[in-house]
Amino acid sequence: MKLRVRDIGEFGIIDKIISLIDGPETPYGMGDDCAFLDFGKEGIAVTTDMVAESTDIPPGMKPQEIGWYAVAINISDLASKGARPLAFFSSIAMLPETPVNFIDALYRGMRDCCSEYGCYIAGGDTSRGKELMISGTAIGRVRREDFIPRKGARVGDVIALTGELGLPALGLDILLGRKKKRCKRAIEALLMPKPRVKEGIYLAEKHLCTSSMDTSDGLASSLHQLAKASGVGMEIDFDLLPIAKEVKSYTHDDEELERFILYTGGEFELLLTMSNEKFEEASKKLNIKKIGIVKDAGINMKKDGAIKELKDKGYTHF
Amino acid sequence: MKLRVRDIGEFGIIDKIISLIDGPETPYGMGDDCAFLDFGKEGIAVTTDMVAESTDIPPGMKPQEIGWYAVAINISDLASKGARPLAFFSSIAMLPETPVNFIDALYRGMRDCCSEYGCYIAGGDTSRGKELMISGTAIGRVRREDFIPRKGARVGDVIALTGELGLPALGLDILLGRKKKRCKRAIEALLMPKPRVKEGIYLAEKHLCTSSMDTSDGLASSLHQLAKASGVGMEIDFDLLPIAKEVKSYTHDDEELERFILYTGGEFELLLTMSNEKFEEASKKLNIKKIGIVKDAGINMKKDGAIKELKDKGYTHF
Repeated sequence: MKLRVRDIGEFGIIDKIISLIDGPETPYGMGDDCAFLDFGKEGIAVTTDMVAESTDIPPGMKPQEIGWYAVAINISDLASKGARPLAFFSSIAMLPETPVNFIDALYRGMRDCCSEYGCYIAGGDTSRGKELMISGTAIGRVRREDFIPRKGARVGDVIALTGELGLPALGLDILLGRKKKRCKRAIEALLMPKPRVKEGIYLAEKHLCTSSMDTSDGLASSLHQLAKASGVGMEIDFDLLPIAKEVKSYTHDDEELERFILYTGGEFELLLTMSNEKFEEASKKLNIKKIGIVKDAGINMKKDGAIKELKDKGYTHF
Repeated sequence: MKLRVRDIGEFGIIDKIISLIDGPETPYGMGDDCAFLDFGKEGIAVTTDMVAESTDIPPGMKPQEIGWYAVAINISDLASKGARPLAFFSSIAMLPETPVNFIDALYRGMRDCCSEYGCYIAGGDTSRGKELMISGTAIGRVRREDFIPRKGARVGDVIALTGELGLPALGLDILLGRKKKRCKRAIEALLMPKPRVKEGIYLAEKHLCTSSMDTSDGLASSLHQLAKASGVGMEIDFDLLPIAKEVKSYTHDDEELERFILYTGGEFELLLTMSNEKFEEASKKLNIKKIGIVKDAGINMKKDGAIKELKDKGYTHF
């Protein structure tokens, strides 16, 4: 039988690709959120992320929001490494019958998100395609000694998180008509995510973290990925999770609540590990919450006095 | 009437996009083959180029060749600025039913092209899409004073070209069944283009050129673009054009010959302008030919004693 992409899934494909690559021994590259390229005193973090109409764009999303989103997901990867956004590049495939106004609004959205985070659109490419497809590459400045890798978490470290959980998932259910409530904050969290650039740069420059990534694949999947990179386990505490109040009130049971806060992608918070002492220091300046502790093994959640395993599921493309 | 992308064409869309961008005043950026980012002593050239199955991939092209091609077109942009390839990033959209072997071969092709030109695959993204779509970003090292821009051609400069003309167009006609001849060199020129990296770096480091770009949109279109960037005209001489011998013998009339050498994309030679003196110096080391002279205005070709206008047509996506 011929093995197909859907049989091995997104992470299977990524592992396959990594096994084929024979780049130099770099400090950070494949498998991290950004590659690091060293220029002596300075260095850059580089990341690339793609948005496809049929997969990533919820119904009713406006072109300006799509543009914002395509930039924000890339900038979030820079933020998770502590890099300062410098330049953005986009390749866009589109149908020939796409209205020019649509492209105009799309680029305004990209430009607005770039300006918001101190970078600019420095280049791009356009092509015809069977659907709208935006591939972005973001470049940020960061010194080698400041770059926060995925690998580095130590047993006993605090697991910390910026912001709140669950709003993008709630927003998606509202857009899909599965929730009848209105919630502006949830829709905005989904359609116009605000990457944690300020937080990432602060944490990096002060050398406060042992590892970091963003939660774009959902919290549970991110915990699995971060733990795997460092060869450790993670235990979070349900009672410590910073769940948005609307998410608490609009979900009808614990199963739904857990789906929203653990297993849905589109969240762009920073998931961090750091010593207890550094966490105390960081939390004086930044809105970050302790949500658990790095353990020897296992990805678990403490809830109602019991420890339960967190499944490695979240958003994947196949 | 609603204006659509196909109504204004690829260059219309690009002009539209450039008008929306409000980046800083950079020495080279939008409108050049690469953006330049300055890090003091060092700098980088960055380019992004996309390959879509339905538009850019001729019938029968193997996955390994597609991978090579996706890297080569980006490296060619670096070469045209004199940048030394450093790292490559790819975002790939694919159908879930894509065989894993296909992806494997695709990445081997990308890896081979990267190694050939001294760089490596440093990162990427995968996504589901309605067709195979590869967006690549290449980063190369180049010092600010070495970067060869598109803008800079001066009236009286020699117009020079690396390599030979017409093979990729011949290869395409063979693959499409429009030519019954076999020609391995033509097929290879089309499917596995060899960017002029060595030539570009030499020309840049010796400061031999006043402007440069690659001929990926075809020679006529490239002459128009290069002339427009510098506000000059171009006059090439048909008798000086380095036409591949197979192209001469396999085309049945002058109209077809001109289509092959002037109006077909997929050629990755460097189109250069330089002083007569520098051309003499460069041609001692490199296989480059003088094909014309930079003029005040007009894009023309001298042929059989007459001057005729070269149409601004070539490969575009819409």
